[in-house]
Amino acid sequence: MKKRVKIVIDCLGGDYAPYEIVKGGVLSAREGNSVILVGREEEIYPLLKKFGEEKNPNIEVYDAREKVEMDEQPSSVLKKKNSSLYVGAKLVREGVGDGLVSAGNTGAVLTVGKFIIGTEEGIERPSIGVALPNPKGRTFLLDLGANVDVKPKHLVQFAIIGHTYAKEIMGIEKPRVGILSIGEEEGKGNELVRETYPLLKETKINFLGNAEGRDIYNGKFDVIVCDGFVGNVILKASESLGFAIVEMIMDEVKKSFITKLGALLIKPAVKRFLKKADFSEYGGIPLLGAKKPVIITHGRANAKAIRNAVRVAVEFLRIDINRILVDNIKKLSPGEVRVGD
Amino acid sequence: MKKRVKIVIDCLGGDYAPYEIVKGGVLSAREGNSVILVGREEEIYPLLKKFGEEKNPNIEVYDAREKVEMDEQPSSVLKKKNSSLYVGAKLVREGVGDGLVSAGNTGAVLTVGKFIIGTEEGIERPSIGVALPNPKGRTFLLDLGANVDVKPKHLVQFAIIGHTYAKEIMGIEKPRVGILSIGEEEGKGNELVRETYPLLKETKINFLGNAEGRDIYNGKFDVIVCDGFVGNVILKASESLGFAIVEMIMDEVKKSFITKLGALLIKPAVKRFLKKADFSEYGGIPLLGAKKPVIITHGRANAKAIRNAVRVAVEFLRIDINRILVDNIKKLSPGEVRVGD
Repeated sequence: MKKRVKIVIDCLGGDYAPYEIVKGGVLSAREGNSVILVGREEEIYPLLKKFGEEKNPNIEVYDAREKVEMDEQPSSVLKKKNSSLYVGAKLVREGVGDGLVSAGNTGAVLTVGKFIIGTEEGIERPSIGVALPNPKGRTFLLDLGANVDVKPKHLVQFAIIGHTYAKEIMGIEKPRVGILSIGEEEGKGNELVRETYPLLKETKINFLGNAEGRDIYNGKFDVIVCDGFVGNVILKASESLGFAIVEMIMDEVKKSFITKLGALLIKPAVKRFLKKADFSEYGGIPLLGAKKPVIITHGRANAKAIRNAVRVAVEFLRIDINRILVDNIKKLSPGEVRVGD
Repeated sequence: MKKRVKIVIDCLGGDYAPYEIVKGGVLSAREGNSVILVGREEEIYPLLKKFGEEKNPNIEVYDAREKVEMDEQPSSVLKKKNSSLYVGAKLVREGVGDGLVSAGNTGAVLTVGKFIIGTEEGIERPSIGVALPNPKGRTFLLDLGANVDVKPKHLVQFAIIGHTYAKEIMGIEKPRVGILSIGEEEGKGNELVRETYPLLKETKINFLGNAEGRDIYNGKFDVIVCDGFVGNVILKASESLGFAIVEMIMDEVKKSFITKLGALLIKPAVKRFLKKADFSEYGGIPLLGAKKPVIITHGRANAKAIRNAVRVAVEFLRIDINRILVDNIKKLSPGEVRVGD
């Protein structure tokens, strides 16, 4: 029988730590997944008791004292050897745990992912991406900020990573992959895009060419690659625009009784939409290319979001996405961009 | 008495050319602005007759035969010497007209703006920007695609251009200016941003530091600068996200009678919001730094959008924004970034 996998959960990271995080671990354990809770024992045990799960064999606890604050320099985690993130990542590196889930400082999670857990063979830069919703389905956008100044060969790797995610996780047989640019034709875009385009044409993925900003939300592509600077500002601008639209519409709604009534009646539809649009519902943002699953949830993650992230990590291990990814990097890369170049 | 200004309108550009464009010219003339309509005479005169304005002294017509298509290479306009855009830009260069309005191929309008009308003293790269709506007001984002691969000194010029626009056109006494980045602290961002930051600190504008993607829509800044690649993908992604949100909510709304009724009642509020959010209502996108006002409207511009763009061009001339801009470039630039560097 296969060894049961154990997912490490960082119980000091996130706006609602430790309560919601520990509760997320409890929900995971209740559905049969094994978790290792890393954080302050004196906080975790009483919570487990409260949830009536202090004796659940699916839950282990490791003590860690320090917390990486949300506004701390990501690299500081490497010095905080008694932080929940550092301890958690080490447990994964040593094989005690098989994956890491954290709602903490994104940069710090990326840092332990890259430098403690390490990257998979053939991957120079692990990447974070997210499947953004659109009326026809979802489009996986990467990189979202793990890699700011990149070279063409890195974008090519992101494309293969994205292809692998879309195929294995989103279940799309032949993912349509594009590179984010301005203008559709080859030759349009900045220097980085113009240099990457011919390399992407040589890969064995289904590369459709340039995607424009509008294509992120219209369903024309399953995967869109960009550098982490661009991906990060787009993701944050999008979230903020969503809030701004709701607030601006509500400002108008408040102006009359009729529109207020309308807002009340339409609420269930808006709620269903928000549920679909909220990618934290889908288990957070994976750091793809790390040696073991590393899942970063939103800082506002609640117990359900943590449970979903654990599910994603378990699924990654179940289908052995890393083996597939390493194979794909070897099989699908263009001649010029080989491992180690 | 001051010479009456005349704004050139490209009557072959835009999805609804020539009808809506000519009508926009008519609306402008009716409110006392002088316009020069450039396009196919045999199309323009019958329309003027239809609107009962064939004898309006505020309307002149110049014939031009060719059209620059929406998907044409922007540079092709320089060879199409009988195109409405080329003829129109030449009329402005020669002083027959005082500004240019077009709903045509954005890249081609930028091209004639830069190369035929020319750029103002001290401006190396004219820039396009737009005042995006947020719950508290508007944030002017530039560049939106006129300049794809830029150097730090260009971003500094964009910041002064944005400052000038926010102060003179948006009426903000001391515009809060930021540079788009990932992370708030100095030192965060890509190479371009990290190199530009210290230069911006040395300008005499009210530079608040890094803006994040979310700050584009939360009202924390009045002006945000970025390179044209990033600005373009954000603008297009934002428009597309707006449509996607509406479509996804409507898909949910259709699922029950109650929510359908709610949608009906809320409609007036949504319409008011859309009006506020639609920047074409505000007169299009100006090419700032060109020697004369060049206003690019959305390809879908209707008569009202054209009229508004004419208003903006007239306003630019009335307050002589170019003189202020040239002064500001001299006065506000840091020591290192002088004219001609």
